[in-house]
Amino acid sequence: MAGPTALPADLADWTLEEGGHAITRRFVFRDFNAAFGFMTRVALHAERHDHHPEWSNVYNRVDVRLTTHDAGGLTERDFTLARHCNAVFTQSLRDPA
Amino acid sequence: MAGPTALPADLADWTLEEGGHAITRRFVFRDFNAAFGFMTRVALHAERHDHHPEWSNVYNRVDVRLTTHDAGGLTERDFTLARHCNAVFTQSLRDPA
Amino acid sequence: MAGPTALPADLADWTLEEGGHAITRRFVFRDFNAAFGFMTRVALHAERHDHHPEWSNVYNRVDVRLTTHDAGGLTERDFTLARHCNAVFTQSLRDPA
Amino acid sequence: MAGPTALPADLADWTLEEGGHAITRRFVFRDFNAAFGFMTRVALHAERHDHHPEWSNVYNRVDVRLTTHDAGGLTERDFTLARHCNAVFTQSLRDPA
Repeated sequence: MAGPTALPADLADWTLEEGGHAITRRFVFRDFNAAFGFMTRVALHAERHDHHPEWSNVYNRVDVRLTTHDAGGLTERDFTLARHCNAVFTQSLRDPA
Repeated sequence: MAGPTALPADLADWTLEEGGHAITRRFVFRDFNAAFGFMTRVALHAERHDHHPEWSNVYNRVDVRLTTHDAGGLTERDFTLARHCNAVFTQSLRDPA
Repeated sequence: MAGPTALPADLADWTLEEGGHAITRRFVFRDFNAAFGFMTRVALHAERHDHHPEWSNVYNRVDVRLTTHDAGGLTERDFTLARHCNAVFTQSLRDPA
Repeated sequence: MAGPTALPADLADWTLEEGGHAITRRFVFRDFNAAFGFMTRVALHAERHDHHPEWSNVYNRVDVRLTTHDAGGLTERDFTLARHCNAVFTQSLRDPA
C-alpha cells in the first residue's frame, strides 16, 4: 500500500521519504546541551504515547525519522510526534542560553 | 563571613536567602515534559561545570536552590548556573508544545 | 479515610508516612551521573503511566515521595512506581562506572 | 597517520573501524526506558569531559561511534568514554526493572 503523497501543512519542514513510509527532519541546535534537552523531551513524549523515533545525534545535530512499524507506514501518531519535535525545537531558536 | 546583600541585576527573579548564603527560584512549566526537559539541561550544565543545584520537583514545578558549599556561600559559579536556568526557562514561556 | 497500615512485602525499604497517605525513600548513588540517570528512568516511567513523583535531589542523593493526589492517598500506581525506583536503583549498587 | 591497530584489552567488545580512526559498539537494552537512561548517563559524561559520541537509537538499541575529531582519530578520551558506556551498560544486564 502506498503511503500519503503529501504532508500536513504544518509539517512542511519535514521530508516525506520516497514511497511515503516515513518522514525525516534534521534539527540543528546551538550546542549539545540544547540538543540533548530536545531529545529528552521527545523521549518523554515517546514513552507517554508509546511511539518512538529512530534518531541519531552528533553534538548539536539531531536527525529524526518517524514511521509506524505496526502499520507499515505513516500514521497520525507520527504526525503527533513530529509536531512535538517542532514545538520543542521552535523554542530553541530563541535560545539565549 | 556575611554573603552578598544584593543580587546581580540580571538575577532579579531570584531570592537571596537570609544571611546571603544561597539563592532560590521557583520555575513553573506547562507540564512535566517541559519541567524535566529543563532539569536535564540544568543537569548537563551542572556536570560540565562541576557545580550542582539543590532542587525539588512536583509535576510542572521545579524549585532550585544554589549555593557553593566549598565557599560557604554564594560565588560566581552560582550566578552562572542561575543564568543558565533563566535562559532555558525563558524559552518555555513561549512553549507551543 | 485512613490509608493502608502496612507496605507490600517487596517495598520494605520504603517508609509509610504517618496517616498512611504517602511512602518515601532516600536513594544514595555514587555520584550525580548515577543519580540523574536514575531520575531520567523514573521520569520516563512517570510519563508512560501518567503518575509522577514528588522528589528532591542534592548531588548523589534523591529523596522520593509517592502518593496519588486524585485518590487522597496511596494506590497501586504508587507501588508500581516504587517498584520501578527499586529496580533501577538496585542496578546502581553494582555500579562499576 | 594510521590509528592504533589494536584495542585496549578491556574494550574487546568494541570494534575498531577499518583505518583505526574510530570504535563502535551496539548496545541492546530490555526497553526504551533502559536505553534512554543509558544515553542520559553517557550524555552527562560527555558534557563533563567535553567529548561527545556519535550515536543512534531505535527503541531498545543504541549504536555508539567514538572518535576524536580534533586529533583525526582515536585518543585516550575515546577510551574513557567507551569505558563509561561499558560500565553503565553492564548494570542493565542485571536489570530487574
